[in-house]
Amino acid sequence: MREKRRLGRSIGLVPTMGALHDGHLSLLKASVEENDISVVSIFVNPTQFNNQEDFEKYPLHIEEDLEKLSKNKCDVVFLPDQGEIYRDKTRLKFHFGSLEKVMEGKFRPGHFNGVAIIVSKLFNIIQPDTAYFGQKDLQQFTIIKLLNEQLDFGIKLRCMPIMREPNGLAMSSRNLRLSSAGIETASIIYKIINKSAELLLTGNSISNVKSFVENEFKNSEARLEYFEIVSLIDMKSIRKIKSGEECALCIAAYVEDVRLIDNTLLTL
Amino acid sequence: MREKRRLGRSIGLVPTMGALHDGHLSLLKASVEENDISVVSIFVNPTQFNNQEDFEKYPLHIEEDLEKLSKNKCDVVFLPDQGEIYRDKTRLKFHFGSLEKVMEGKFRPGHFNGVAIIVSKLFNIIQPDTAYFGQKDLQQFTIIKLLNEQLDFGIKLRCMPIMREPNGLAMSSRNLRLSSAGIETASIIYKIINKSAELLLTGNSISNVKSFVENEFKNSEARLEYFEIVSLIDMKSIRKIKSGEECALCIAAYVEDVRLIDNTLLTL
Repeated sequence: MREKRRLGRSIGLVPTMGALHDGHLSLLKASVEENDISVVSIFVNPTQFNNQEDFEKYPLHIEEDLEKLSKNKCDVVFLPDQGEIYRDKTRLKFHFGSLEKVMEGKFRPGHFNGVAIIVSKLFNIIQPDTAYFGQKDLQQFTIIKLLNEQLDFGIKLRCMPIMREPNGLAMSSRNLRLSSAGIETASIIYKIINKSAELLLTGNSISNVKSFVENEFKNSEARLEYFEIVSLIDMKSIRKIKSGEECALCIAAYVEDVRLIDNTLLTL
Repeated sequence: MREKRRLGRSIGLVPTMGALHDGHLSLLKASVEENDISVVSIFVNPTQFNNQEDFEKYPLHIEEDLEKLSKNKCDVVFLPDQGEIYRDKTRLKFHFGSLEKVMEGKFRPGHFNGVAIIVSKLFNIIQPDTAYFGQKDLQQFTIIKLLNEQLDFGIKLRCMPIMREPNGLAMSSRNLRLSSAGIETASIIYKIINKSAELLLTGNSISNVKSFVENEFKNSEARLEYFEIVSLIDMKSIRKIKSGEECALCIAAYVEDVRLIDNTLLTL
């Protein structure tokens, strides 16, 4: 891509793990609008999986992916194999302090190290002007923003809105592993997030909202892993409502043994 | 520098902390020979100092430095201030596993994290084709090589030979803090390294050589911090001599409270 940059062309990068859905395609669409050249990478990155089974079951649909990309004006697909990206044993680790001690960092040990390694590699290999990520992985975006700022990658980062199924379920490649009953069950996640936001905005305390969420999950087929109300700045749990504070309501839950996450942003 | 790259010019980077000596200038010379544009950065990087006093006493000679650089065909001097490089509290950390558990990593906790952060920043800001480092900081070079490979910076790295004072003392900005008696005392370091290499090559055991070094320092004004015979690949201590193995003999010692390091390469 260095040659393209030498010609003064702007490059947009959409990093993905494939099994592309409309969420990914919305990132590509933004990239196509804002750049001369749009690159989509497809790489199921082993170092960000803390759970080997989750890695092995991660859906692969390369042919459909390539068709979707070609229909949606992707200029370059970067489809490296494992040995190309991880030529040697990984002997370097990133740590992100308190940012990785909560939510995804807490329940997926090592996850953000793997994310930071693959994103650094992609930034260095592709050298994009702008990179596009989905808001569904909100904590990941916060980590990548920090990485970009603190190592001076100088890349413009865009966090794009969550795309949803008609029943409200956040789009995710992992949804492919759900039965149609599972997809129905999983729709509770977004409903609960929305109801929690409403409860917070109408004056309920944080502990009341947390109890509400726990109870809702108890009465459902979905199993709650965490529900957190966090500051948008540092992803730390908010203990007391301060008017005007920007926060996110974040959930991780299991449906049919598939781990799903979702969130919404809120100004208290 | 992105504009320069767009014009197809090759860029060489010589990262320094200033107080330039002939060692630095030999790196610049190599860069000038091999690149269209040579950039020297001068930045005393606080995050790589584990010892606040060492940081505060680190010599600063900006005017002389700029004169030397202009005489030696440096095209660009990058002289950022602290607030430009560290805009926010550093909330990201690098770990390098066993590579940082020995020698400089062991005796200067956090040092290589600081090195990796500033080098990543410089690589991203300057975007050099080639970067030049001195062999005196051999373990640092190994860490930077790993960083470059594992994050795919794609930069060519050159490790340039140690430059020495007439009495053998390895050139270092810290030598400016030594009295002339101290410089004389410090010359023992290189003499001991050379004698150790000779002892190893003539069949002496590693423990014999280590005892020799300890004894030599006991009889001198210099205080030994460590002497290690390490594999050039992973910087691990060599316990048994294997014919043909590439290794380094590394010393850290204090003279007049100034910490000095030196090394030599050897094929067993």
